[in-house]
Amino acid sequence: MSNGGGVASSTTHLLDFLEEPIPGVGTYDDFHTIDWVREKCKDRERHRKINSKKKESSWEFSKSVYDAWSGWLVVTLTGLASGALAGLIDIAADWLNDLKEGVCLSAMWFNHEQCCWTSNETTFAERDKCPQWKSWAELILGQAEGPGSYIMNYFMYIYWALSFAFLAVLLVKVFAPYACGSGIPEIKTILSGFIIRGYLGKWTLLIKTITLVLAVASGLSLGKEGPLVHVACCCGNIFSYLFPKYSKNEAKKREVLSAASAAGVSVAFGAPIGGVLFSLEEVSYYFPLKTLWRSFFAALVAAFVLRSINPFGNSRLVLFYVEYHTPWYLFELLPFILLGVFGGLWGSTRFGKYPVLEVILVTAITAVVAFPNPYTRQNTSMLIKELFTDCGPLESSQLCQYRSQMNGSKAFNETPNRPSAPGVYAAMWQLCLALIFKVVITIFTFGLKVPSGLFIPSMAIGAIAGRIVGIAMEQLAYYHHDWFIFKEWCEVGADCITPGLYAMVGAAACLGGVTRMTVSLVVIVFELTGGLEYIVPLMAAVMTSKWVGDAFGRAGIYESHIRLNGYPFLDAKEEFTHTTLAREVMRPRRSDPPLAVLTQDDLSVEELQAVISETSYNGFPVIVSKESQRLVGFALRRDITIAIENARRKQEGIVLASRVYFTQHAPTLPADSPRPLKLRSILDMSPFTVTDHTPMEIVVDIFRKLGLRQCLVTHNGRLLGIITKKDILRHMAQMANQDPDTIMFN
Amino acid sequence: MSNGGGVASSTTHLLDFLEEPIPGVGTYDDFHTIDWVREKCKDRERHRKINSKKKESSWEFSKSVYDAWSGWLVVTLTGLASGALAGLIDIAADWLNDLKEGVCLSAMWFNHEQCCWTSNETTFAERDKCPQWKSWAELILGQAEGPGSYIMNYFMYIYWALSFAFLAVLLVKVFAPYACGSGIPEIKTILSGFIIRGYLGKWTLLIKTITLVLAVASGLSLGKEGPLVHVACCCGNIFSYLFPKYSKNEAKKREVLSAASAAGVSVAFGAPIGGVLFSLEEVSYYFPLKTLWRSFFAALVAAFVLRSINPFGNSRLVLFYVEYHTPWYLFELLPFILLGVFGGLWGSTRFGKYPVLEVILVTAITAVVAFPNPYTRQNTSMLIKELFTDCGPLESSQLCQYRSQMNGSKAFNETPNRPSAPGVYAAMWQLCLALIFKVVITIFTFGLKVPSGLFIPSMAIGAIAGRIVGIAMEQLAYYHHDWFIFKEWCEVGADCITPGLYAMVGAAACLGGVTRMTVSLVVIVFELTGGLEYIVPLMAAVMTSKWVGDAFGRAGIYESHIRLNGYPFLDAKEEFTHTTLAREVMRPRRSDPPLAVLTQDDLSVEELQAVISETSYNGFPVIVSKESQRLVGFALRRDITIAIENARRKQEGIVLASRVYFTQHAPTLPADSPRPLKLRSILDMSPFTVTDHTPMEIVVDIFRKLGLRQCLVTHNGRLLGIITKKDILRHMAQMANQDPDTIMFN
Repeated sequence: MSNGGGVASSTTHLLDFLEEPIPGVGTYDDFHTIDWVREKCKDRERHRKINSKKKESSWEFSKSVYDAWSGWLVVTLTGLASGALAGLIDIAADWLNDLKEGVCLSAMWFNHEQCCWTSNETTFAERDKCPQWKSWAELILGQAEGPGSYIMNYFMYIYWALSFAFLAVLLVKVFAPYACGSGIPEIKTILSGFIIRGYLGKWTLLIKTITLVLAVASGLSLGKEGPLVHVACCCGNIFSYLFPKYSKNEAKKREVLSAASAAGVSVAFGAPIGGVLFSLEEVSYYFPLKTLWRSFFAALVAAFVLRSINPFGNSRLVLFYVEYHTPWYLFELLPFILLGVFGGLWGSTRFGKYPVLEVILVTAITAVVAFPNPYTRQNTSMLIKELFTDCGPLESSQLCQYRSQMNGSKAFNETPNRPSAPGVYAAMWQLCLALIFKVVITIFTFGLKVPSGLFIPSMAIGAIAGRIVGIAMEQLAYYHHDWFIFKEWCEVGADCITPGLYAMVGAAACLGGVTRMTVSLVVIVFELTGGLEYIVPLMAAVMTSKWVGDAFGRAGIYESHIRLNGYPFLDAKEEFTHTTLAREVMRPRRSDPPLAVLTQDDLSVEELQAVISETSYNGFPVIVSKESQRLVGFALRRDITIAIENARRKQEGIVLASRVYFTQHAPTLPADSPRPLKLRSILDMSPFTVTDHTPMEIVVDIFRKLGLRQCLVTHNGRLLGIITKKDILRHMAQMANQDPDTIMFN
Repeated sequence: MSNGGGVASSTTHLLDFLEEPIPGVGTYDDFHTIDWVREKCKDRERHRKINSKKKESSWEFSKSVYDAWSGWLVVTLTGLASGALAGLIDIAADWLNDLKEGVCLSAMWFNHEQCCWTSNETTFAERDKCPQWKSWAELILGQAEGPGSYIMNYFMYIYWALSFAFLAVLLVKVFAPYACGSGIPEIKTILSGFIIRGYLGKWTLLIKTITLVLAVASGLSLGKEGPLVHVACCCGNIFSYLFPKYSKNEAKKREVLSAASAAGVSVAFGAPIGGVLFSLEEVSYYFPLKTLWRSFFAALVAAFVLRSINPFGNSRLVLFYVEYHTPWYLFELLPFILLGVFGGLWGSTRFGKYPVLEVILVTAITAVVAFPNPYTRQNTSMLIKELFTDCGPLESSQLCQYRSQMNGSKAFNETPNRPSAPGVYAAMWQLCLALIFKVVITIFTFGLKVPSGLFIPSMAIGAIAGRIVGIAMEQLAYYHHDWFIFKEWCEVGADCITPGLYAMVGAAACLGGVTRMTVSLVVIVFELTGGLEYIVPLMAAVMTSKWVGDAFGRAGIYESHIRLNGYPFLDAKEEFTHTTLAREVMRPRRSDPPLAVLTQDDLSVEELQAVISETSYNGFPVIVSKESQRLVGFALRRDITIAIENARRKQEGIVLASRVYFTQHAPTLPADSPRPLKLRSILDMSPFTVTDHTPMEIVVDIFRKLGLRQCLVTHNGRLLGIITKKDILRHMAQMANQDPDTIMFN
């Protein structure tokens, strides 16, 4: 060692740390960024302590086993809770949704379908008409048919929709403002290392669960899928409080949250693998392989629970399960890519942000316009299911009313020849109107102060567009089977276009446009539909939609939302391409006052408090002396304040004139000086440093990959300045010609 | 700025860099580690240069467009080539494999199946018996039946197997020693930033393609899946030479290789999404989202090409496509988990490493033992397909010969009741023998000096074990349908156990045990089989197999192989859990001579050369002066040597006595001194530094995440020592009580 001063052995250093666990040191304020490196070190320290003790007694040993398994335990609990809540929400939303149309007289708590299950009198064809189920018109007017009952049903539909929406918005407004929206942008920000207290708390969970049911049932054009991720993350956060390993460590807690978001998507779509990939590609920031396995497990457990609850009554994880029986042909790539373009355009739409009262207005308009059109009145998930489904002999949907060649009568298609019948034409018109309506109303719905996801509405829009294109292609192939492309690929008389496949591709494209996911999206759609053979069309559409979306509007919906809220989110996807060097970004700038630093052993408590009160920085570099400017370490403002308060309360003889020292040994002081205050335990002795010549691209990379909050800048071994995450984000905003003051938090 | 000396403006620094592009500076020696940070900076620099020029002329603009699209172009080419080669290998291996049994007289280049396609005389049931196809016995002895012809066929089978194996091992030995094995461990190492020249070259590609066909056809217990990843990576490497963006930048080249490995798995298993996940989870080191998309695309293109070539003749991407019609039940989780345990045990087997000559021995034993048993004689992929397939009315496999309840005769099962028939018993015995044989022979086969993958043999072992368990469960359920578990779940007379599903789960478990993959494996199996409903059993088995494997033998097969070869691979999966600090790992140690450093402006060329020749370090820190020990930058040995040689050849007046300076301005020298040599352009002015108090866990994290080669250690702003990747790996080996000298490269 070339110099001897201040070199403490590692054990001393560690003992120092353990000696004085000042309460509060190492925690964070609300709306602040965590220090990933420090959190990870704290966890390893804790782990070593448990490991070293485990041979002492069987109690300590069982504690260590419990600790080792607590990660699996917490993700299991989270998976169980997410699955159960998702099942509950599905069932409750179904019931409330059917309440808009009528009630089950034999058992109030049955929805329409369950009500008719218990009836023995109905045949398969009339499965949704049974005497136990009464529409509101039947109940109130006593008649089931006629214009009067139609108007009564229409009125009750609007009445219930407004009631649900009003109740939802009221609950959100009064009890848990954080419960609105999908929550995914905030979860992304939280996972990147930001603190938003209460965002994942029990109140948010309770209110979000209730209002989600109400919002879905109100018939607004929104999905429960995004909010389910928020619900799952709340579960993860709440269960992590049972385990000190997770509750006391912000980095470890985020591992649980990553797994929880995988479980959320897993139950939202019945897609466990898609959920893991979603967590990896879209929301997570720090995703070690251990988290991959745990996410996988959480997603599995959640899917398992949901499957046991069986809310869809089809004993499948998958609501939209379809099987197509024809392959796809090369020429179909063109319409698929066109659907991708449509999806990209949809994804670059700007969505609204509307205040509370407009919820009622949007709900009223939605209800009024949606009721007459069967494609907008029905549950969006059911609509998607119908659009995805291929026409088979058993299919009773209007979309499948093809004219049979033989007798010209309307009949369910069993021959491969498929000229369209009036039913299909009517369905096409209704679909076109539904498409326009869904596009307009979804733009206004997203941003309302109720729990709302964009997944299902986007999928519905894509599925409608896709089905329209699919039917058009099908009729084209039927009427022009002598065209070169059709002649080449479609055998005469054989079925060669599957309109349901177009709906599926369209849905994937629109979802991809909005979220800019690629791999995870293909996996989700593919788990959702069971359409394993159709990866290539899905991939083509999703890639196109991503390219088009990126070309038109740079960021996906989550990134836009994060930017709008000014959260300090350092996106791993955006590359920093400028040539600036660290010293051009660091503070102090040329015109600024010099950097606020602390010297390691010649400040008094009073001087230290003065530095803290005069500045608003979150931390201060500690140097050997003002002359040498050689860096010793870094101390956080919050920790210094807590440590001084703690010392003045607990240690005797600490007064304003006490000398503060960060070195291993107390400096030699005159005999009459007051007792000095040792603050080495709060000093971070391994602060990150870069030289002033380091290109900012490297600095940004370091911040991203290591999750830093700040980094010190040196030149030839001397301290020059400091760069914080906020500085970087502001610099990036400036470089992109945006207002740097939109970055609000540190 | 607190100090003025040596502070150059950023533009000057960049101009400096551009002024003197010394040829050779910035390249690497064979078996050395690359510097990720430097490579990425170089690429951004290049990108900026092209971007700034693009408005100058339309030529420059089109160059910039070409540059922007070259990433997509190179992955497209790689995908195309990988798909085409995979198809070619499939077809050639099939043909050679059938050559062991006979030839097609009507067309020599047809394999058995194709030969009989052209025959009109055969019925569906006898589709593999047609007059054009002659077995060797028929050709040579003129008779198709009888013991003589059996022995002749047996002999010819062994003869061809030995010939193929001998040719394969000879070609590998003489032309391309790098072509042996699966190549995945080396590709992992290369992707982590290591240079192995020629490993992905054209010779390796050519020889590996040919010998892979021979090795597969020889009937050895090996698969083509791992080697196909190597083949795809060779294609990626070769195509990257068409684009200077990739050929001149080792980091960018690795992005192409990541995409190529995804394409390799995509064609190996017909699993594009699984391929991307494999690349992400298993082989890649640096995997930005851009690479995710490109990998996705490469995998897509490769799968597409393979589908067009259609080597399996079923117009599916998937060879083993199966559809099961019964759901699985909760109690089946127990056998699935047992299969997971079996897979984990298989994965903790130690595989052999055997030299060249033993190839012949192993081939001979394989051929002799394999021929009599139909389950070992047939192509392993076909075996797996048969084991996965559920027994349906059309299934002619011996495994499906169940006794019909009605008349007691052997009949294909159409009723749900399934007592076993003698055919099934015989099949069970043969399967048990096949299992033992496969386990033993695979252990000896892996490590032979021929291209060999472990995926398919592992899957076969798992599938055999799974099928055995499945049939056992099925018979148990049949004969004891009054047991509680069966009574609860299986309706009387209904089919409740699917033995094919057990085979699938077993295959996944064994593959998982060997590779320790989780999510990517489930996705691969799932794409492979189309068994979408069976994620939960797959996940349960794969997780179990991973846990058991981890508990018995710590590392997967690739990690073990990497360790055996002493490659400097810093595994992202293993956590560093020790309490050592940076200064305990850094060199110089207490007993060592002091650190070899260069001073920034007072060395002569002669002194510099002396430092270089006296030490063997790969680089030297540059400091302000010996007294201050303040760090200026870092210069690489290779760069210094090249720069001095270059200067002495090209710059006049550079002699041994010339002063070398790394500062911006030349030091003031006496009037008669020779022309000084400026070496600032090779100086890395942003070396990574950590303090001596930094815990090694953080240092290891930095090395992993940023891909560093070395890091300097300071104390209070003064240089103390250096830590290289090799130091870290040796320290980790020491901590794990392994021999640190097994780490051979830097």
